[in-house]
Amino acid sequence: MATDSSYTPTPLLPTIDSPDDLRHLRPEQLPQVCDELRQFLINSLSVNPGHFASSMGAVELTVALHYVFNTPYDRIVWDVGHQAYSHKILTGRRDAFAGNRKLGGLSGFPNPDESPYDTFAAGHASNSISAALGMAVASKLNNDSPRRNVVAVIGDASISGGLAFEGINNAANTPNNLLIVLNDNDMSIDRNVGSLNSYLAHITTSKTYNNIRFKVYNMFRKMHLISDNGRGSIMRFNNSLKSLISHQQNIFEGLNIRYFGPFDGHDLPTVIRVLNDIRDMEGPRILHLRTVKGKGYAPAEKDPSTWHAPGCFDAVTGQRLEKPASADHPIKYQDVFGHTLVELAEKNKDIVAITAAMLSGTSTATMQEAFPERVFDVGISEGHAVTFAGGLAKEGKQPFVAIYSSFLQRAYDHIIHDVALNRRRVTFCIDRAGIVGEDGPTHHGAFDLAYMRTVPNMTVAAPRNEHMLRHLLFTAQAVDCGPFAIRYPRGKGRMPDWKCDMKTLETGRGEKLSDGSDIAVLTIGPVADEAAAAIEKARADGISAAHYDMIFLKPLDTKILREIADRHLNIITVEDGTVNGGLGSAVAEWLEDNNITDIRLARLGLPDKFIPQGTPAQLADLCGIDAEAIYRAIKSNVTEKTVCQK
Amino acid sequence: MATDSSYTPTPLLPTIDSPDDLRHLRPEQLPQVCDELRQFLINSLSVNPGHFASSMGAVELTVALHYVFNTPYDRIVWDVGHQAYSHKILTGRRDAFAGNRKLGGLSGFPNPDESPYDTFAAGHASNSISAALGMAVASKLNNDSPRRNVVAVIGDASISGGLAFEGINNAANTPNNLLIVLNDNDMSIDRNVGSLNSYLAHITTSKTYNNIRFKVYNMFRKMHLISDNGRGSIMRFNNSLKSLISHQQNIFEGLNIRYFGPFDGHDLPTVIRVLNDIRDMEGPRILHLRTVKGKGYAPAEKDPSTWHAPGCFDAVTGQRLEKPASADHPIKYQDVFGHTLVELAEKNKDIVAITAAMLSGTSTATMQEAFPERVFDVGISEGHAVTFAGGLAKEGKQPFVAIYSSFLQRAYDHIIHDVALNRRRVTFCIDRAGIVGEDGPTHHGAFDLAYMRTVPNMTVAAPRNEHMLRHLLFTAQAVDCGPFAIRYPRGKGRMPDWKCDMKTLETGRGEKLSDGSDIAVLTIGPVADEAAAAIEKARADGISAAHYDMIFLKPLDTKILREIADRHLNIITVEDGTVNGGLGSAVAEWLEDNNITDIRLARLGLPDKFIPQGTPAQLADLCGIDAEAIYRAIKSNVTEKTVCQK
Repeated sequence: MATDSSYTPTPLLPTIDSPDDLRHLRPEQLPQVCDELRQFLINSLSVNPGHFASSMGAVELTVALHYVFNTPYDRIVWDVGHQAYSHKILTGRRDAFAGNRKLGGLSGFPNPDESPYDTFAAGHASNSISAALGMAVASKLNNDSPRRNVVAVIGDASISGGLAFEGINNAANTPNNLLIVLNDNDMSIDRNVGSLNSYLAHITTSKTYNNIRFKVYNMFRKMHLISDNGRGSIMRFNNSLKSLISHQQNIFEGLNIRYFGPFDGHDLPTVIRVLNDIRDMEGPRILHLRTVKGKGYAPAEKDPSTWHAPGCFDAVTGQRLEKPASADHPIKYQDVFGHTLVELAEKNKDIVAITAAMLSGTSTATMQEAFPERVFDVGISEGHAVTFAGGLAKEGKQPFVAIYSSFLQRAYDHIIHDVALNRRRVTFCIDRAGIVGEDGPTHHGAFDLAYMRTVPNMTVAAPRNEHMLRHLLFTAQAVDCGPFAIRYPRGKGRMPDWKCDMKTLETGRGEKLSDGSDIAVLTIGPVADEAAAAIEKARADGISAAHYDMIFLKPLDTKILREIADRHLNIITVEDGTVNGGLGSAVAEWLEDNNITDIRLARLGLPDKFIPQGTPAQLADLCGIDAEAIYRAIKSNVTEKTVCQK
Repeated sequence: MATDSSYTPTPLLPTIDSPDDLRHLRPEQLPQVCDELRQFLINSLSVNPGHFASSMGAVELTVALHYVFNTPYDRIVWDVGHQAYSHKILTGRRDAFAGNRKLGGLSGFPNPDESPYDTFAAGHASNSISAALGMAVASKLNNDSPRRNVVAVIGDASISGGLAFEGINNAANTPNNLLIVLNDNDMSIDRNVGSLNSYLAHITTSKTYNNIRFKVYNMFRKMHLISDNGRGSIMRFNNSLKSLISHQQNIFEGLNIRYFGPFDGHDLPTVIRVLNDIRDMEGPRILHLRTVKGKGYAPAEKDPSTWHAPGCFDAVTGQRLEKPASADHPIKYQDVFGHTLVELAEKNKDIVAITAAMLSGTSTATMQEAFPERVFDVGISEGHAVTFAGGLAKEGKQPFVAIYSSFLQRAYDHIIHDVALNRRRVTFCIDRAGIVGEDGPTHHGAFDLAYMRTVPNMTVAAPRNEHMLRHLLFTAQAVDCGPFAIRYPRGKGRMPDWKCDMKTLETGRGEKLSDGSDIAVLTIGPVADEAAAAIEKARADGISAAHYDMIFLKPLDTKILREIADRHLNIITVEDGTVNGGLGSAVAEWLEDNNITDIRLARLGLPDKFIPQGTPAQLADLCGIDAEAIYRAIKSNVTEKTVCQK
């Protein structure tokens, strides 16, 4: 679609099996490679969904990097890696790309276990600079010869994370030759950087600019306001002057890093020329490229947020094929959260909402539409989100902090120190808890039940369905029990009639969902449905299983546990979280602490390893927490000999 | 000592029971208050040790803040709070200060549960801006009248943390009136800020500067390089110009925050004048004060690092009263770590060491003296420390990351995502694990066993003594078993002869320390000594207790557990970590998973709450993990009826 239909050149992409093949092409052939890469992405992602717009925007950058640098000897470290699809296609994974994000297929992110070209894990934002700095410093220590170049490629959203700042700050103070490429598609970072215009790219190399620089520099020298004392001084002078002229400043200028740009990241000859110019320089440096998210595909350029991960679409018309919510397709847990929060906020003026760059992902956007002044999107800054919430709570606000489970790991200390220590009333809405599916090991919310349980003063709960989510949200704002964590899964709920009157739940109180005499199944969260199906199936085999929804992991409902222990010899716990430290562990501890020795416990949950990618159903099967696995556990546990009869 | 001995004015400090009393003094009386505060600090801290130098440096700032702002209605948020002793003394806690850092006494840090003047928890660095921003935003939402001012006071070390950057970045983009005071004592941050000179403070208000500004501004306007479009634009222009003239830049200038300074933080009239000038301004702003750590006490000014927390000292001579290590006073675990690392690094050239602003605290300084190019002090940036280590490990280096347990909580996600996911060979030397004593709840290393156990691929170990620490360090670099966590306590070890030949330990293998038939005591870490004493005492009562050192929490030694289960009906686990998720939990899980129903388990460890401050011995008693508590557990568990006889 990007090439002229009247002339079809011999395709190049099918001949590129590694960057070496790319490097044998003539520079003037590279735009064709870019066109073909874009068409490849469109064709592939329209039928096998993935992250679309970021990779479309990074096509020229990717081609240029592999053309100029000697990969994989030279290292490219992608941040997050939404933008790295072209990189995968150019590095021997063109055919394998059809299996992108599928069980056993290519990872949707760079994955060092998949290819030597993928140098570092890249699912959580802002880590590229620190990781690449490690590689660059190691390479210096190793005296690698020839010199090994290391390039970190980071987007303008990722660079707002504190980790990226820590990385830049340290890169500026350590001997290294790290090149940081800022792929700035104007979707985040502060508005200054976003508003940098092409004029600046021109002027920094123009005669006018150099005239001004000369004039101002001489004026200041005459007034003894500056002096020549080495490269650093002149560099800072130039950076300052650029800021002054553009009346734009960015975070790099405050740090001792050589700064180049901004340049048009889609101007391939320029990008290649600049990369060649700065490739062999000594010391850390930053190249700032401006790109367009979704570049080359009109619908995506127009609405890059939606096209970040658009699902299936018609490649020709650009029509997205996702069905809207309906009675047959219940809305997502996220939407229940968003709408319910608005309902609550209408009556409770102290409620505020915080999210970390995931306004639409968490549906906090719904609250933002209703109460813009009470919603804070802090960017990729999970730590700040939580500490900021602690400050708001100190002054009587009731913050609801909506963050993905695996990203909230970034704020573990902040939860402990800035919220739990002084029992600040902050509600953690832990989104995408448990198995998330195709995003894979970096994104599964596997650990939150376990790490939240370690935190003193914390209440930890999980709704089994949309109604319970509403009740828990209602409870968190109705009752002050200090910090309150509510974890719920990614995606579709199961109740078309999710709206219900809300009520206060008693914290630390579970619920018996069904009676049974042979065995008790204890669940937390929506795995309740899987357990119910398993119990139903077992019933057909003549096994009578009781079902308890614990609702709260902490405080643990010891009253209901006592009831269960009095009636049953076998207990199965099921949770969509790591078996190390979650519900099963809590029940095991309780049994041991209470010297209850006649009960057999089987703990189902995510195994103590990183869970691969796949559909949620495939992974639930793999981890043994789907209905079939629970059914098997019921059968095998109830039929084995027990210690004694009650 | 700071007052003239020939004239003794009537003391003022004894009359100040609250900041209100301070605010009734005349400005010219305030220097005397400062003198008296310093003398009070010297007298008090020389006999009851605490953080000395930071508070000495913040005396004028503290007096000025309480003089200008209407505390506690206005909020002061101290970062870390080492500097907040004068604040405590001026806010009604002068007499209580004698109990500083003691069990039941004043906290060594601001503590909201202690006083309304202490607005936020302040034991972990870099959180003040985010927390204060929360308060400032809440106050705007609450329409507080009169306007409530919020001031964050942050040191130059704390501001290098990513959290502080996230806070500043968000402060610049949210409507708020936050005042950030940078208390810059030149101990950290990048050298540029440190090298800012007083000339700059002068010039920014001088006629010369204003002339230049006018000239450059007009020149640029004529060339259409800048235009007037509001306050933000002019502010950025001014910030840029200051940078250009001073050829100094700092991180604030890249962000839309009004910047004032630097000023001499010991020039009380100036500090009061500036604070009055900027108090009622709209929008976020930064005041940069230069102070001297240890100000007013010559020995501390000369060696501020040592005097950060000097222990007891002679107030007159300045001689520190701490005894050096000797046969009677074994060296610290930290020193064993430092010396051993050097020994290992001499033979293994791939070993590098990383610490986060704790070179001397962790004794990584020893390694730095021996191999400066192989040691990286990344400043207060725990997240970066870990991700950087991941990058180094990717290129074949073997990083040893020495960080305090409670601070490593900041890097929980980085451990999972940037190290464990790809089994990077990084050794975590978790310092100050378990009870730390007087630093209290923010500093106890209570959670590391529990949170490290949740991480797939992680090996988790704790040495029972200095020899085992050496073996574990040796093992970590001799055997590649992926990420390896070694936790050890703060302070003195117990072996004068800590030097021993090192050997490889089998990972996941515990050790029987003593035989016994009535009960088995399982420990991890130096609580082994407490258990041994308890076992000895129980032996006198005719109870025969076996003692096993598990050494590894993960992988758990299931072989030795099987042996124990075959021989015993009673098991006690003891650990210097939270009972939620540590060794006791792991053993409980194992018993349940293996359907071993005839064993009674008692789990001793830190309770599921924040542990207060006190001496380590007091707190071990309080938490029930000292010899006496273990003895009691042995007695009560062994004498109770058990299920059956083996």
